[in-house]
Amino acid sequence: MKLVKTVAEMQELGRLWRAEGKKVGLVPTMGYLHEGHLTLAKEAVANNDLTVMSVFVNPIQFGANEDLDVYPRDLAGDIAKAESVGVDYVFAPEARDMYPKGFAASINLTGVTETLCGQSRPGHFQGVCVVITKLFNLVQPANAYFGQKDGQQLAVLKKLAKDFNMPVKINGVPIVREADGLAKSSRNVYLDEECRRQALVLSQSLAVAKRLYDGGERDAEVIKAAVRAHIETAPLADIEYIEIVDALTMQPVARPEQQVMLALAVRFKTTRLIDNILLGEEV
Amino acid sequence: MKLVKTVAEMQELGRLWRAEGKKVGLVPTMGYLHEGHLTLAKEAVANNDLTVMSVFVNPIQFGANEDLDVYPRDLAGDIAKAESVGVDYVFAPEARDMYPKGFAASINLTGVTETLCGQSRPGHFQGVCVVITKLFNLVQPANAYFGQKDGQQLAVLKKLAKDFNMPVKINGVPIVREADGLAKSSRNVYLDEECRRQALVLSQSLAVAKRLYDGGERDAEVIKAAVRAHIETAPLADIEYIEIVDALTMQPVARPEQQVMLALAVRFKTTRLIDNILLGEEV
Repeated sequence: MKLVKTVAEMQELGRLWRAEGKKVGLVPTMGYLHEGHLTLAKEAVANNDLTVMSVFVNPIQFGANEDLDVYPRDLAGDIAKAESVGVDYVFAPEARDMYPKGFAASINLTGVTETLCGQSRPGHFQGVCVVITKLFNLVQPANAYFGQKDGQQLAVLKKLAKDFNMPVKINGVPIVREADGLAKSSRNVYLDEECRRQALVLSQSLAVAKRLYDGGERDAEVIKAAVRAHIETAPLADIEYIEIVDALTMQPVARPEQQVMLALAVRFKTTRLIDNILLGEEV
Repeated sequence: MKLVKTVAEMQELGRLWRAEGKKVGLVPTMGYLHEGHLTLAKEAVANNDLTVMSVFVNPIQFGANEDLDVYPRDLAGDIAKAESVGVDYVFAPEARDMYPKGFAASINLTGVTETLCGQSRPGHFQGVCVVITKLFNLVQPANAYFGQKDGQQLAVLKKLAKDFNMPVKINGVPIVREADGLAKSSRNVYLDEECRRQALVLSQSLAVAKRLYDGGERDAEVIKAAVRAHIETAPLADIEYIEIVDALTMQPVARPEQQVMLALAVRFKTTRLIDNILLGEEV
Protein backbone atom coordinates (compact mmCIF):
# COMPACT_ATOMS: atom_id res chain seq x y z
CA MET A 1 0.00 0.00 0.00
CA LYS A 2 1.21 3.46 -0.89
CA LEU A 3 0.49 6.75 0.90
CA VAL A 4 -0.08 9.74 -1.41
CA LYS A 5 0.23 13.06 0.42
CA THR A 6 0.07 15.75 -2.28
CA VAL A 7 -2.53 16.83 -4.82
CA ALA A 8 0.14 16.98 -7.53
CA GLU A 9 1.21 13.38 -6.95
CA MET A 10 -2.41 12.20 -6.91
CA GLN A 11 -3.16 14.01 -10.18
CA GLU A 12 -0.11 12.44 -11.81
CA LEU A 13 -1.17 8.95 -10.68
CA GLY A 14 -4.68 9.57 -11.99
CA ARG A 15 -3.28 10.54 -15.40
CA LEU A 16 -1.03 7.47 -15.43
CA TRP A 17 -3.85 5.06 -14.56
CA ARG A 18 -6.00 6.65 -17.19
CA ALA A 19 -3.30 6.25 -19.86
CA GLU A 20 -2.95 2.62 -18.80
CA GLY A 21 -6.72 2.06 -19.03
CA LYS A 22 -6.93 1.07 -15.32
CA LYS A 23 -10.38 0.75 -13.75
CA VAL A 24 -10.07 2.65 -10.48
CA GLY A 25 -12.36 2.51 -7.44
CA LEU A 26 -12.46 5.47 -5.04
CA VAL A 27 -13.61 5.43 -1.42
CA PRO A 28 -13.75 9.00 -0.09
CA THR A 29 -13.62 9.18 3.71
CA MET A 30 -12.83 11.61 6.51
CA GLY A 31 -10.77 8.88 8.18
CA TYR A 32 -11.05 7.40 11.68
CA LEU A 33 -12.13 4.29 9.85
CA HIS A 34 -14.70 1.83 11.14
CA GLU A 35 -16.30 -1.29 9.75
CA GLY A 36 -18.62 0.83 7.58
CA HIS A 37 -15.71 2.40 5.71
CA LEU A 38 -14.00 -0.97 5.36
CA THR A 39 -17.14 -2.45 3.83
CA LEU A 40 -16.99 0.28 1.17
CA ALA A 41 -13.31 -0.47 0.62
CA LYS A 42 -13.95 -4.20 0.23
CA GLU A 43 -16.62 -3.45 -2.39
CA ALA A 44 -14.12 -1.27 -4.25
CA VAL A 45 -11.31 -3.82 -4.03
CA ALA A 46 -13.58 -6.58 -5.34
CA ASN A 47 -14.79 -4.62 -8.37
CA ASN A 48 -11.89 -2.53 -9.69
CA ASP A 49 -8.31 -2.91 -10.93
CA LEU A 50 -7.10 -0.77 -8.05
CA THR A 51 -8.60 1.07 -5.10
CA VAL A 52 -7.85 4.52 -3.71
CA MET A 53 -9.14 5.56 -0.30
CA SER A 54 -9.01 9.26 0.47
CA VAL A 55 -8.66 10.31 4.11
CA PHE A 56 -9.41 14.00 4.36
CA VAL A 57 -11.35 15.92 6.99
CA ASN A 58 -12.84 18.42 4.55
CA PRO A 59 -13.00 21.79 6.33
CA ILE A 60 -15.49 23.39 3.93
CA GLN A 61 -18.25 20.90 4.74
CA PHE A 62 -18.22 21.88 8.41
CA GLY A 63 -20.24 24.82 9.71
CA ALA A 64 -18.75 27.46 12.00
CA ASN A 65 -20.19 25.88 15.15
CA GLU A 66 -19.56 22.27 14.21
CA ASP A 67 -16.94 19.72 15.26
CA LEU A 68 -14.15 20.31 12.71
CA ASP A 69 -11.51 20.97 15.37
CA VAL A 70 -12.32 17.94 17.46
CA TYR A 71 -13.21 15.51 14.65
CA PRO A 72 -11.33 12.30 15.53
CA ARG A 73 -8.19 11.53 13.50
CA ASP A 74 -5.83 8.55 13.34
CA LEU A 75 -3.99 8.39 10.02
CA ALA A 76 -1.58 5.64 11.09
CA GLY A 77 -4.49 3.47 12.23
CA ASP A 78 -6.43 4.27 9.05
CA ILE A 79 -3.52 3.24 6.84
CA ALA A 80 -3.19 -0.10 8.64
CA LYS A 81 -6.93 -0.77 8.35
CA ALA A 82 -7.05 0.24 4.68
CA GLU A 83 -4.12 -2.02 3.90
CA SER A 84 -5.75 -4.92 5.73
CA VAL A 85 -8.67 -4.94 3.27
CA GLY A 86 -6.56 -4.54 0.14
CA VAL A 87 -6.66 -0.79 -0.54
CA ASP A 88 -3.80 0.09 -2.91
CA TYR A 89 -3.43 3.83 -2.23
CA VAL A 90 -4.41 6.08 0.66
CA PHE A 91 -4.66 9.73 -0.41
CA ALA A 92 -4.30 12.02 2.62
CA PRO A 93 -3.73 15.60 1.44
CA GLU A 94 -3.31 18.74 3.52
CA ALA A 95 -6.20 21.21 3.57
CA ARG A 96 -3.97 23.99 2.20
CA ASP A 97 -3.07 21.76 -0.74
CA MET A 98 -6.74 21.07 -1.53
CA TYR A 99 -7.79 24.69 -0.92
CA PRO A 100 -4.81 26.94 -1.65
CA LYS A 101 -4.89 30.70 -1.14
CA GLY A 102 -7.31 32.25 -3.64
CA PHE A 103 -9.47 29.14 -3.97
CA ALA A 104 -12.74 30.52 -5.33
CA ALA A 105 -15.01 27.69 -6.48
CA SER A 106 -18.36 26.54 -5.16
CA ILE A 107 -21.10 24.24 -6.38
CA ASN A 108 -24.78 24.36 -5.61
CA LEU A 109 -27.53 21.83 -6.25
CA THR A 110 -31.02 23.08 -5.60
CA GLY A 111 -33.70 20.75 -4.24
CA VAL A 112 -31.82 17.66 -3.10
CA THR A 113 -29.49 19.65 -0.80
CA GLU A 114 -32.22 21.76 0.77
CA THR A 115 -34.03 19.33 3.08
CA LEU A 116 -32.96 17.25 6.11
CA CYS A 117 -29.28 17.84 6.97
CA GLY A 118 -29.09 20.50 4.25
CA GLN A 119 -31.54 22.56 6.26
CA SER A 120 -29.76 22.21 9.58
CA ARG A 121 -26.22 22.35 8.15
CA PRO A 122 -26.21 25.25 5.64
CA GLY A 123 -23.26 24.96 3.22
CA HIS A 124 -22.55 21.36 4.21
CA PHE A 125 -23.49 19.68 0.92
CA GLN A 126 -21.94 22.50 -1.11
CA GLY A 127 -18.66 21.63 0.62
CA VAL A 128 -19.22 17.93 0.00
CA CYS A 129 -19.89 18.55 -3.70
CA VAL A 130 -16.69 20.57 -4.10
CA VAL A 131 -14.41 18.06 -2.41
CA ILE A 132 -15.92 15.09 -4.23
CA THR A 133 -15.64 16.88 -7.60
CA LYS A 134 -11.96 17.55 -6.86
CA LEU A 135 -11.33 13.96 -5.79
CA PHE A 136 -13.04 12.62 -8.92
CA ASN A 137 -10.92 14.86 -11.14
CA LEU A 138 -7.72 13.88 -9.35
CA VAL A 139 -8.29 10.12 -9.11
CA GLN A 140 -10.46 9.68 -12.23
CA PRO A 141 -12.31 6.68 -10.81
CA ALA A 142 -14.76 4.50 -12.74
CA ASN A 143 -16.54 3.74 -9.46
CA ALA A 144 -16.96 5.63 -6.20
CA TYR A 145 -18.41 4.17 -3.02
CA PHE A 146 -20.49 5.88 -0.35
CA GLY A 147 -22.42 4.59 2.65
CA GLN A 148 -26.20 4.58 2.77
CA LYS A 149 -25.65 5.78 6.36
CA ASP A 150 -25.22 9.29 4.89
CA GLY A 151 -28.34 8.76 2.79
CA GLN A 152 -28.84 12.35 1.72
CA GLN A 153 -25.15 12.68 0.81
CA LEU A 154 -25.54 9.63 -1.43
CA ALA A 155 -28.58 11.19 -3.16
CA VAL A 156 -26.76 14.53 -3.53
CA LEU A 157 -23.72 12.89 -5.10
CA LYS A 158 -25.84 10.84 -7.51
CA LYS A 159 -27.48 14.09 -8.61
CA LEU A 160 -24.10 15.84 -8.83
CA ALA A 161 -22.70 13.11 -11.06
CA LYS A 162 -25.85 13.09 -13.19
CA ASP A 163 -26.18 16.84 -13.70
CA PHE A 164 -22.50 17.26 -14.55
CA ASN A 165 -22.31 14.04 -16.65
CA MET A 166 -19.41 12.81 -14.53
CA PRO A 167 -17.86 9.63 -15.94
CA VAL A 168 -18.12 7.75 -12.66
CA LYS A 169 -20.67 5.38 -11.15
CA ILE A 170 -21.86 6.31 -7.64
CA ASN A 171 -22.29 3.10 -5.64
CA GLY A 172 -24.30 3.12 -2.42
CA VAL A 173 -23.44 0.51 0.21
CA PRO A 174 -25.85 -0.57 2.98
CA ILE A 175 -25.46 0.73 6.54
CA VAL A 176 -23.16 -1.27 8.81
CA ARG A 177 -24.35 -1.46 12.41
CA GLU A 178 -22.96 -2.43 15.78
CA ALA A 179 -24.23 -5.75 17.17
CA ASP A 180 -26.94 -3.89 19.11
CA GLY A 181 -28.11 -1.89 16.07
CA LEU A 182 -26.38 1.51 16.41
CA ALA A 183 -25.21 2.66 12.98
CA LYS A 184 -21.39 2.76 12.81
CA SER A 185 -20.06 6.31 12.81
CA SER A 186 -16.76 7.99 13.58
CA ARG A 187 -18.77 10.31 15.80
CA ASN A 188 -19.92 7.44 18.07
CA VAL A 189 -16.70 7.93 20.07
CA TYR A 190 -18.19 11.18 21.36
CA LEU A 191 -20.99 9.31 23.17
CA ASP A 192 -20.73 8.74 26.92
CA GLU A 193 -22.04 5.48 28.34
CA GLU A 194 -25.55 6.74 29.04
CA CYS A 195 -25.91 8.38 25.62
CA ARG A 196 -24.55 5.29 23.92
CA ARG A 197 -27.20 3.19 25.67
CA GLN A 198 -30.08 5.55 24.89
CA ALA A 199 -28.96 6.00 21.25
CA LEU A 200 -30.30 2.51 20.56
CA VAL A 201 -33.75 4.06 20.21
CA LEU A 202 -32.70 5.30 16.75
CA SER A 203 -32.27 1.94 15.03
CA GLN A 204 -35.19 0.56 17.05
CA SER A 205 -37.41 3.38 15.80
CA LEU A 206 -36.48 2.56 12.20
CA ALA A 207 -37.59 -1.02 12.84
CA VAL A 208 -40.90 0.38 14.13
CA ALA A 209 -41.27 2.32 10.88
CA LYS A 210 -40.48 -0.73 8.77
CA ARG A 211 -43.03 -2.86 10.60
CA LEU A 212 -45.71 -0.24 9.97
CA TYR A 213 -44.72 0.17 6.30
CA ASP A 214 -44.56 -3.58 5.69
CA GLY A 215 -47.96 -3.87 7.36
CA GLY A 216 -49.39 -1.54 4.69
CA GLU A 217 -49.28 1.85 6.45
CA ARG A 218 -48.74 4.59 3.84
CA ASP A 219 -49.53 7.76 5.81
CA ALA A 220 -46.15 9.41 6.38
CA GLU A 221 -47.48 11.34 9.37
CA VAL A 222 -48.57 8.15 11.10
CA ILE A 223 -45.19 6.49 10.53
CA LYS A 224 -43.24 9.58 11.64
CA ALA A 225 -45.38 9.93 14.78
CA ALA A 226 -44.64 6.32 15.76
CA VAL A 227 -40.91 6.88 15.22
CA ARG A 228 -41.02 10.07 17.27
CA ALA A 229 -42.91 8.38 20.08
CA HIS A 230 -40.31 5.63 20.28
CA ILE A 231 -37.36 8.03 20.26
CA GLU A 232 -38.97 10.14 22.95
CA THR A 233 -38.76 7.17 25.32
CA ALA A 234 -35.05 8.13 25.58
CA PRO A 235 -34.88 11.16 27.91
CA LEU A 236 -31.56 12.41 26.44
CA ALA A 237 -32.77 12.31 22.83
CA ASP A 238 -33.14 15.78 21.32
CA ILE A 239 -34.81 15.30 17.94
CA GLU A 240 -33.60 17.57 15.10
CA TYR A 241 -35.72 16.02 12.37
CA ILE A 242 -37.66 12.90 11.46
CA GLU A 243 -38.68 12.97 7.81
CA ILE A 244 -39.90 10.71 5.01
CA VAL A 245 -38.49 11.79 1.66
CA ASP A 246 -38.31 10.51 -1.89
CA ALA A 247 -35.17 8.37 -2.16
CA LEU A 248 -33.87 10.28 -5.19
CA THR A 249 -35.03 13.89 -4.74
CA MET A 250 -34.96 14.06 -0.92
CA GLN A 251 -38.28 15.91 -1.04
CA PRO A 252 -40.92 15.13 1.63
CA VAL A 253 -43.53 12.56 0.62
CA ALA A 254 -46.95 12.41 2.26
CA ARG A 255 -47.98 8.98 0.92
CA PRO A 256 -45.04 6.79 -0.19
CA GLU A 257 -45.53 5.19 -3.60
CA GLN A 258 -41.97 4.93 -4.94
CA GLN A 259 -39.00 4.15 -2.72
CA VAL A 260 -38.65 6.56 0.19
CA MET A 261 -36.08 7.12 2.90
CA LEU A 262 -37.10 7.62 6.49
CA ALA A 263 -34.29 9.78 7.83
CA LEU A 264 -33.63 11.20 11.25
CA ALA A 265 -31.12 13.36 13.07
CA VAL A 266 -31.08 13.31 16.85
CA ARG A 267 -28.72 14.87 19.37
CA PHE A 268 -27.57 13.11 22.51
CA LYS A 269 -25.98 15.89 24.57
CA THR A 270 -23.41 17.43 22.16
CA THR A 271 -23.33 14.48 19.75
CA ARG A 272 -25.48 14.65 16.63
CA LEU A 273 -26.35 11.23 15.19
CA ILE A 274 -28.10 10.44 11.91
CA ASP A 275 -29.70 7.22 10.75
CA ASN A 276 -32.12 6.13 8.04
CA ILE A 277 -33.95 3.25 6.41
CA LEU A 278 -35.14 2.77 2.85
CA LEU A 279 -38.80 1.75 2.52
CA GLY A 280 -40.11 0.20 -0.69
CA GLU A 281 -38.28 -1.13 -3.71
CA GLU A 282 -35.67 0.83 -5.66
CA VAL A 283 -37.15 2.46 -8.76
CA MET B 1 -16.26 13.35 -39.76
CA LYS B 2 -19.02 12.12 -37.49
CA LEU B 3 -21.92 14.09 -36.03
CA VAL B 4 -22.83 13.21 -32.44
CA LYS B 5 -26.26 14.43 -31.44
CA THR B 6 -26.95 12.98 -27.99
CA VAL B 7 -25.33 13.29 -24.58
CA ALA B 8 -25.50 9.51 -24.12
CA GLU B 9 -23.61 8.84 -27.34
CA MET B 10 -20.98 11.46 -26.48
CA GLN B 11 -20.47 9.97 -23.01
CA GLU B 12 -20.05 6.51 -24.49
CA LEU B 13 -17.45 7.77 -26.99
CA GLY B 14 -15.61 9.56 -24.18
CA ARG B 15 -15.44 6.32 -22.20
CA LEU B 16 -14.25 4.40 -25.24
CA TRP B 17 -11.48 6.88 -26.07
CA ARG B 18 -10.39 6.85 -22.47
CA ALA B 19 -10.20 3.05 -22.39
CA GLU B 20 -8.15 3.20 -25.60
CA GLY B 21 -5.80 5.82 -24.11
CA LYS B 22 -6.66 8.35 -26.84
CA LYS B 23 -5.46 11.94 -26.39
CA VAL B 24 -8.52 14.04 -27.20
CA GLY B 25 -8.68 17.75 -28.05
CA LEU B 26 -11.93 19.64 -27.43
CA VAL B 27 -13.00 22.90 -29.07
CA PRO B 28 -16.19 24.18 -27.41
CA THR B 29 -18.13 26.63 -29.60
CA MET B 30 -21.59 28.08 -29.99
CA GLY B 31 -21.35 27.47 -33.75
CA TYR B 32 -21.70 29.88 -36.66
CA LEU B 33 -18.02 29.22 -37.14
CA HIS B 34 -15.55 31.80 -38.36
CA GLU B 35 -11.80 31.81 -38.88
CA GLY B 36 -11.25 32.28 -35.13
CA HIS B 37 -12.98 28.98 -34.32
CA LEU B 38 -11.16 27.22 -37.13
CA THR B 39 -7.81 28.41 -35.77
CA LEU B 40 -8.72 26.74 -32.47
CA ALA B 41 -9.70 23.59 -34.33
CA LYS B 42 -6.42 23.51 -36.28
CA GLU B 43 -4.48 23.81 -33.02
CA ALA B 44 -6.46 20.88 -31.61
CA VAL B 45 -6.05 18.74 -34.72
CA ALA B 46 -2.29 19.34 -34.74
CA ASN B 47 -1.77 18.39 -31.10
CA ASN B 48 -4.13 15.51 -30.29
CA ASP B 49 -5.05 12.00 -31.44
CA LEU B 50 -8.54 13.19 -32.27
CA THR B 51 -10.53 16.40 -32.10
CA VAL B 52 -14.09 17.04 -30.97
CA MET B 53 -15.79 20.34 -31.70
CA SER B 54 -18.96 21.05 -29.75
CA VAL B 55 -21.57 23.28 -31.36
CA PHE B 56 -24.07 24.30 -28.71
CA VAL B 57 -25.75 27.64 -28.09
CA ASN B 58 -25.77 27.30 -24.31
CA PRO B 59 -29.00 28.86 -23.05
CA ILE B 60 -27.90 29.24 -19.42
CA GLN B 61 -25.07 31.65 -20.28
CA PHE B 62 -27.49 34.17 -21.82
CA GLY B 63 -29.30 36.75 -19.71
CA ALA B 64 -33.03 37.35 -19.99
CA ASN B 65 -32.59 40.41 -22.22
CA GLU B 66 -29.79 39.02 -24.37
CA ASP B 67 -29.65 37.59 -27.89
CA LEU B 68 -30.27 33.85 -27.27
CA ASP B 69 -33.27 33.71 -29.62
CA VAL B 70 -31.57 35.48 -32.50
CA TYR B 71 -28.05 34.09 -32.03
CA PRO B 72 -26.98 33.03 -35.56
CA ARG B 73 -27.00 29.29 -36.31
CA ASP B 74 -25.86 27.20 -39.28
CA LEU B 75 -25.14 23.60 -38.26
CA ALA B 76 -24.73 22.32 -41.83
CA GLY B 77 -22.23 25.06 -42.61
CA ASP B 78 -20.43 24.46 -39.30
CA ILE B 79 -20.08 20.74 -40.02
CA ALA B 80 -18.57 21.44 -43.45
CA LYS B 81 -16.11 23.97 -42.01
CA ALA B 82 -15.14 21.70 -39.12
CA GLU B 83 -14.53 18.82 -41.51
CA SER B 84 -12.40 21.04 -43.77
CA VAL B 85 -9.84 21.56 -40.99
CA GLY B 86 -9.74 17.94 -39.86
CA VAL B 87 -12.17 17.86 -36.90
CA ASP B 88 -13.15 14.23 -36.24
CA TYR B 89 -16.40 14.69 -34.32
CA VAL B 90 -18.93 17.50 -34.09
CA PHE B 91 -21.03 17.26 -30.91
CA ALA B 92 -24.28 19.19 -31.35
CA PRO B 93 -26.69 18.26 -28.54
CA GLU B 94 -30.18 19.58 -27.87
CA ALA B 95 -30.63 21.94 -24.92
CA ARG B 96 -33.15 19.59 -23.30
CA ASP B 97 -30.59 16.79 -23.45
CA MET B 98 -27.93 18.93 -21.75
CA TYR B 99 -30.40 20.40 -19.23
CA PRO B 100 -33.17 17.88 -18.68
CA LYS B 101 -36.17 18.56 -16.43
CA GLY B 102 -35.00 18.83 -12.83
CA PHE B 103 -31.47 19.97 -13.69
CA ALA B 104 -30.30 21.60 -10.46
CA ALA B 105 -26.56 22.30 -10.65
CA SER B 106 -24.68 25.57 -10.64
CA ILE B 107 -21.06 26.62 -10.20
CA ASN B 108 -19.70 29.87 -8.87
CA LEU B 109 -16.19 31.30 -8.92
CA THR B 110 -15.71 34.42 -6.88
CA GLY B 111 -13.30 37.15 -8.00
CA VAL B 112 -12.43 36.25 -11.58
CA THR B 113 -16.10 36.21 -12.70
CA GLU B 114 -17.07 39.44 -10.96
CA THR B 115 -15.42 42.14 -13.09
CA LEU B 116 -15.79 43.20 -16.77
CA CYS B 117 -18.42 41.09 -18.56
CA GLY B 118 -19.24 39.35 -15.27
CA GLN B 119 -20.52 42.64 -13.96
CA SER B 120 -22.64 43.53 -16.99
CA ARG B 121 -23.82 39.96 -17.68
CA PRO B 122 -24.82 38.49 -14.28
CA GLY B 123 -24.94 34.68 -14.39
CA HIS B 124 -23.05 34.54 -17.69
CA PHE B 125 -19.85 32.92 -16.43
CA GLN B 126 -21.76 30.63 -14.09
CA GLY B 127 -23.51 29.28 -17.19
CA VAL B 128 -20.20 28.98 -19.03
CA CYS B 129 -18.64 27.06 -16.12
CA VAL B 130 -21.53 24.59 -16.01
CA VAL B 131 -21.55 23.82 -19.72
CA ILE B 132 -17.77 23.49 -19.92
CA THR B 133 -17.70 21.19 -16.88
CA LYS B 134 -20.33 19.01 -18.54
CA LEU B 135 -18.45 18.97 -21.87
CA PHE B 136 -15.19 18.05 -20.12
CA ASN B 137 -16.88 15.17 -18.30
CA LEU B 138 -18.53 13.91 -21.48
CA VAL B 139 -15.58 14.20 -23.86
CA GLN B 140 -12.75 13.71 -21.31
CA PRO B 141 -10.26 15.78 -23.30
CA ALA B 142 -6.56 16.15 -22.48
CA ASN B 143 -6.63 19.60 -24.12
CA ALA B 144 -9.32 22.22 -24.57
CA TYR B 145 -8.99 25.31 -26.77
CA PHE B 146 -10.46 28.77 -26.23
CA GLY B 147 -9.93 32.08 -27.98
CA GLN B 148 -8.14 34.99 -26.31
CA LYS B 149 -10.94 37.05 -27.88
CA ASP B 150 -13.08 36.03 -24.90
CA GLY B 151 -10.22 36.89 -22.58
CA GLN B 152 -12.14 36.83 -19.32
CA GLN B 153 -13.77 33.52 -20.27
CA LEU B 154 -10.28 32.07 -20.78
CA ALA B 155 -9.17 33.30 -17.34
CA VAL B 156 -12.38 31.97 -15.75
CA LEU B 157 -11.91 28.54 -17.30
CA LYS B 158 -8.25 28.35 -16.26
CA LYS B 159 -9.38 29.10 -12.71
CA LEU B 160 -12.23 26.57 -12.97
CA ALA B 161 -9.84 23.83 -14.10
CA LYS B 162 -7.32 24.76 -11.41
CA ASP B 163 -9.72 24.97 -8.47
CA PHE B 164 -11.44 21.69 -9.37
CA ASN B 165 -8.19 19.92 -10.37
CA MET B 166 -9.67 19.07 -13.76
CA PRO B 167 -7.41 16.72 -15.75
CA VAL B 168 -7.39 18.96 -18.82
CA LYS B 169 -5.08 21.67 -20.11
CA ILE B 170 -6.79 24.96 -21.03
CA ASN B 171 -5.10 26.37 -24.13
CA GLY B 172 -5.60 30.02 -25.11
CA VAL B 173 -5.29 30.91 -28.79
CA PRO B 174 -4.58 34.46 -30.05
CA ILE B 175 -7.37 36.64 -31.45
CA VAL B 176 -8.05 36.29 -35.18
CA ARG B 177 -8.97 39.57 -36.87
CA GLU B 178 -10.50 40.73 -40.14
CA ALA B 179 -8.04 42.34 -42.59
CA ASP B 180 -8.99 45.78 -41.24
CA GLY B 181 -8.51 44.77 -37.60
CA LEU B 182 -12.02 43.98 -36.33
CA ALA B 183 -11.88 40.91 -34.07
CA LYS B 184 -13.73 37.99 -35.66
CA SER B 185 -17.03 37.26 -33.91
CA SER B 186 -20.22 35.45 -34.77
CA ARG B 187 -21.99 38.60 -33.61
CA ASN B 188 -20.34 40.74 -36.32
CA VAL B 189 -23.19 39.72 -38.66
CA TYR B 190 -25.48 41.92 -36.58
CA LEU B 191 -23.56 45.09 -37.61
CA ASP B 192 -24.98 47.34 -40.31
CA GLU B 193 -22.58 49.03 -42.73
CA GLU B 194 -22.11 52.18 -40.68
CA CYS B 195 -21.57 50.30 -37.39
CA ARG B 196 -19.16 47.91 -39.09
CA ARG B 197 -17.09 50.91 -40.29
CA GLN B 198 -17.10 52.71 -36.94
CA ALA B 199 -16.32 49.48 -35.02
CA LEU B 200 -12.75 49.74 -36.31
CA VAL B 201 -12.05 52.18 -33.48
CA LEU B 202 -11.91 49.19 -31.11
CA SER B 203 -8.84 47.47 -32.52
CA GLN B 204 -7.30 50.88 -33.27
CA SER B 205 -7.74 51.91 -29.64
CA LEU B 206 -5.95 48.75 -28.50
CA ALA B 207 -3.04 49.74 -30.74
CA VAL B 208 -3.05 53.16 -29.06
CA ALA B 209 -2.81 51.43 -25.68
CA LYS B 210 0.02 49.17 -26.84
CA ARG B 211 2.03 52.15 -28.16
CA LEU B 212 1.66 53.90 -24.80
CA TYR B 213 2.55 50.76 -22.84
CA ASP B 214 5.55 49.95 -25.04
CA GLY B 215 6.66 53.58 -24.65
CA GLY B 216 6.84 53.01 -20.89
CA GLU B 217 3.48 54.37 -19.71
CA ARG B 218 2.36 52.44 -16.59
CA ASP B 219 -0.49 54.58 -15.28
CA ALA B 220 -3.64 52.57 -16.08
CA GLU B 221 -5.80 55.70 -15.93
CA VAL B 222 -3.69 57.42 -18.58
CA ILE B 223 -3.84 54.40 -20.89
CA LYS B 224 -7.59 53.93 -20.40
CA ALA B 225 -8.24 57.64 -21.02
CA ALA B 226 -6.39 57.46 -24.33
CA VAL B 227 -8.38 54.39 -25.36
CA ARG B 228 -11.64 56.09 -24.39
CA ALA B 229 -10.74 59.24 -26.30
CA HIS B 230 -10.05 57.23 -29.44
CA ILE B 231 -13.26 55.18 -29.20
CA GLU B 232 -15.28 58.34 -28.63
CA THR B 233 -14.27 59.55 -32.09
CA ALA B 234 -16.91 57.06 -33.34
CA PRO B 235 -20.33 58.71 -32.77
CA LEU B 236 -22.19 55.35 -32.61
CA ALA B 237 -19.86 53.84 -29.98
CA ASP B 238 -21.58 53.36 -26.61
CA ILE B 239 -18.85 52.32 -24.15
CA GLU B 240 -19.82 49.69 -21.55
CA TYR B 241 -16.39 49.31 -19.99
CA ILE B 242 -12.70 49.93 -20.64
CA GLU B 243 -10.57 48.25 -17.98
CA ILE B 244 -7.03 47.12 -17.28
CA VAL B 245 -6.98 43.94 -15.23
CA ASP B 246 -4.49 41.33 -14.07
CA ALA B 247 -4.33 38.65 -16.78
CA LEU B 248 -5.00 35.81 -14.32
CA THR B 249 -7.30 37.25 -11.65
CA MET B 250 -9.21 39.77 -13.82
CA GLN B 251 -8.93 42.31 -10.98
CA PRO B 252 -8.27 45.97 -11.88
CA VAL B 253 -4.63 47.03 -11.79
CA ALA B 254 -3.57 50.67 -11.29
CA ARG B 255 0.08 50.26 -12.32
CA PRO B 256 0.76 47.19 -14.48
CA GLU B 257 3.75 45.14 -13.30
CA GLN B 258 2.84 41.60 -14.31
CA GLN B 259 0.95 40.81 -17.52
CA VAL B 260 -2.35 42.67 -17.77
CA MET B 261 -5.28 42.61 -20.17
CA LEU B 262 -6.77 45.80 -21.49
CA ALA B 263 -10.37 44.75 -22.13
CA LEU B 264 -13.32 46.65 -23.49
CA ALA B 265 -16.98 46.18 -24.29
CA VAL B 266 -18.70 48.66 -26.58
CA ARG B 267 -22.16 48.72 -28.11
CA PHE B 268 -22.87 49.83 -31.65
CA LYS B 269 -26.65 50.22 -31.74
CA THR B 270 -27.92 46.82 -30.50
CA THR B 271 -24.68 44.95 -31.06
CA ARG B 272 -22.33 44.45 -28.13
CA LEU B 273 -18.69 43.89 -29.16
CA ILE B 274 -15.76 42.93 -26.95
CA ASP B 275 -12.05 43.11 -27.66
CA ASN B 276 -8.82 43.02 -25.67
CA ILE B 277 -5.04 43.06 -25.80
CA LEU B 278 -2.46 41.53 -23.47
CA LEU B 279 0.23 43.95 -22.29
CA GLY B 280 3.52 42.68 -20.85
CA GLU B 281 4.98 39.20 -20.76
CA GLU B 282 3.14 36.12 -19.51
CA VAL B 283 4.06 35.28 -15.90
